[in-house]
Amino acid sequence: MTAQLEWTGQGLHFLVRPESGHELVFDSPVEVGGTDQAARPMEGLLASMLACFSADVVSILQKKRKTVRTFRVQAQAERREEFPRVFTAVTLHLRVESPDATPADVERSIELSRTKYCSAMAMFEAAGCRIHITYELNPSGT
Amino acid sequence: MTAQLEWTGQGLHFLVRPESGHELVFDSPVEVGGTDQAARPMEGLLASMLACFSADVVSILQKKRKTVRTFRVQAQAERREEFPRVFTAVTLHLRVESPDATPADVERSIELSRTKYCSAMAMFEAAGCRIHITYELNPSGT
Repeated sequence: MTAQLEWTGQGLHFLVRPESGHELVFDSPVEVGGTDQAARPMEGLLASMLACFSADVVSILQKKRKTVRTFRVQAQAERREEFPRVFTAVTLHLRVESPDATPADVERSIELSRTKYCSAMAMFEAAGCRIHITYELNPSGT
Repeated sequence: MTAQLEWTGQGLHFLVRPESGHELVFDSPVEVGGTDQAARPMEGLLASMLACFSADVVSILQKKRKTVRTFRVQAQAERREEFPRVFTAVTLHLRVESPDATPADVERSIELSRTKYCSAMAMFEAAGCRIHITYELNPSGT
């Protein structure tokens, strides 16, 4: 995989063009020299892991011929106080709406993503970040 | 740090809203069930690491009162063949234009980012990914 990064010359505003051609943009808060035009790099790292994991879970449910109506994840991440400020723990709470998926389907999909398919989550865990995952299937009020 | 992910219901197209409020968007190739509207999650992971590292290097050069005219990075990443397809090696080639930075300034900035400040690169290395960095200062033809 290849990617090109270019600094725009404004604060800490960077454009990254990956192989797919879909540009990603990053920036930093004004108080550290950024221009606050885009997400922070560590937000990007967390968001990429959430998307990697979610793509696997949704795909696996669909391969089980389950209908996924809605799929949301709420993430809470902790970082080390000292530099480098790596992620030390991430808690994910999934809310899945499906008329035909069972709790066992959701649990198996989470487990397969976590232990086999999700490359980003595997890197977080290999780097010492603890991952805790909970879910609600057809939560009331949705 | 918190973040919310939402599936748009189209293929593997996900929106992530991090704390800064600047949305990140991810998708997958059509051949694996995506709709190719945005970067892939693992492209996002690599791009975030490039931006984290670059923000540190540019900041450190500026704190040394050096003028950075342009800053670009070309990245080449290798992944494991088997699942999970983690990054195993990343090569970064920096091209920096500056009228007053010396090779020692650039090397020290790279070293400080890599060993002290860059949280994303620290996670890649802790996960077993080898990082190799080269640079050109005021390359001819730029």
